[in-house]
Amino acid sequence: MTMNLAVDIGNSYIKAAVYHAGELCGNFRFNKKEGILKKFEKIFDNYPYIKHAILSSTADDVDDIKLFLEERCTYFIRLDENTPIPIVNEYATPETLGCDRIAAAVGGYYIYPRHNVVIVDFGSAITIDLLTKDGAFTGGNISPGLSMRFKALNTFTDKLPLCEAVEETEFLGNSTRTAVESGVINSVVFEIEGYLKRFEKYYGEIKILFTGGDGNYFAKRLKNPIFANCDLVVYGLNQILEYNVQKRN
Amino acid sequence: MTMNLAVDIGNSYIKAAVYHAGELCGNFRFNKKEGILKKFEKIFDNYPYIKHAILSSTADDVDDIKLFLEERCTYFIRLDENTPIPIVNEYATPETLGCDRIAAAVGGYYIYPRHNVVIVDFGSAITIDLLTKDGAFTGGNISPGLSMRFKALNTFTDKLPLCEAVEETEFLGNSTRTAVESGVINSVVFEIEGYLKRFEKYYGEIKILFTGGDGNYFAKRLKNPIFANCDLVVYGLNQILEYNVQKRN
Repeated sequence: MTMNLAVDIGNSYIKAAVYHAGELCGNFRFNKKEGILKKFEKIFDNYPYIKHAILSSTADDVDDIKLFLEERCTYFIRLDENTPIPIVNEYATPETLGCDRIAAAVGGYYIYPRHNVVIVDFGSAITIDLLTKDGAFTGGNISPGLSMRFKALNTFTDKLPLCEAVEETEFLGNSTRTAVESGVINSVVFEIEGYLKRFEKYYGEIKILFTGGDGNYFAKRLKNPIFANCDLVVYGLNQILEYNVQKRN
Repeated sequence: MTMNLAVDIGNSYIKAAVYHAGELCGNFRFNKKEGILKKFEKIFDNYPYIKHAILSSTADDVDDIKLFLEERCTYFIRLDENTPIPIVNEYATPETLGCDRIAAAVGGYYIYPRHNVVIVDFGSAITIDLLTKDGAFTGGNISPGLSMRFKALNTFTDKLPLCEAVEETEFLGNSTRTAVESGVINSVVFEIEGYLKRFEKYYGEIKILFTGGDGNYFAKRLKNPIFANCDLVVYGLNQILEYNVQKRN
């Protein structure tokens, strides 16, 4: 028996998922500051059949994790712009395209093959990407994520407090706190509505996938039928791993 | 002859405007770090008829400017929640409502009396406020401004570069730089579109006023008929000053 480990190192968190025959067996998320290698030791203790691993990172300093995974696995991929993938990357600067975005696009390709898929990743940053029905990653946009917007208002102004997302908001705030809460939440909701409207106008029928830490939060707040999958990046990473294992055989 | 001086101290800049009989005679904008009092000295040298002044600030440490204006003028107002204004402030926490927002609303009231007016101030933060046709400030929202969104993406992520607004963008970026440029600009455009759509739905006919440093930039990028006035806050401050001078007489 062989299990796969897919690891996504983002700006705020590390996500790791264990797969067996395409099925998710275990799912982990931890802070980048915690003793990382100990966490990975524990995953390998609990899943001794992990023999293949893939690593995606938006940061540079991941050599210790890379070394650890290389040692522990018979097959290891550090995802970069040269890794073979089952979709076409039409990005002008593939070397600067976040690996998490390409992995999420591959995930979208397997969930909705032969469809135009819009993938919105609500992480530290929000990325809005399009995978065409021909399997081409044509491009996408980046804007600040939900928590980042709250943090920026507090950090870069003299007087605004640090607020956070709440379940219920009025359309307009009537105090500084509710003005920031409604303002930031609406800023994201209206932004994504604007994108979905334009994608439908330009591309006709589209499938919509939300992922990332705040994916569920916003899926509930938009009218369109949305499939929210918090594990889209690691799911896509596992597909890239499988694709390369099969190519090798 | 009596001239008025209206001073708005924001998060990034100080704006000052000289008025005579409701007409703008001079308009100044300078960085908060430059020798402020010298700048004011010069304004008073050039406009010796300034006798009335009003000061609005989103910061606390403005005692030197306040003292200076008090000394130089026969009538001085530091705008706060107790200052009489010609509109009704229905904010739940008037003491935390930015003075610049109330001043812009008063400006909107004089430009479009007896209309529902939506005022969007594109400064360090973006404020979206509603003044109803009955002259009531009912509330509004706050989200990060254009430059703040660029700065946040660079400051709070490992790898994203510091970008800035450009004149021309594609709908979707195809490099990290264009992804951030299109992403941030669209995030603001779609946000404001979403607001205007809802304001029209909830309130029927509305008048739209854009102000603040990026007001013109976004007025060009939205379809609605918009009156962009970069000096709305100081214009409103002067109206508040006049209103109080007349009350006194």
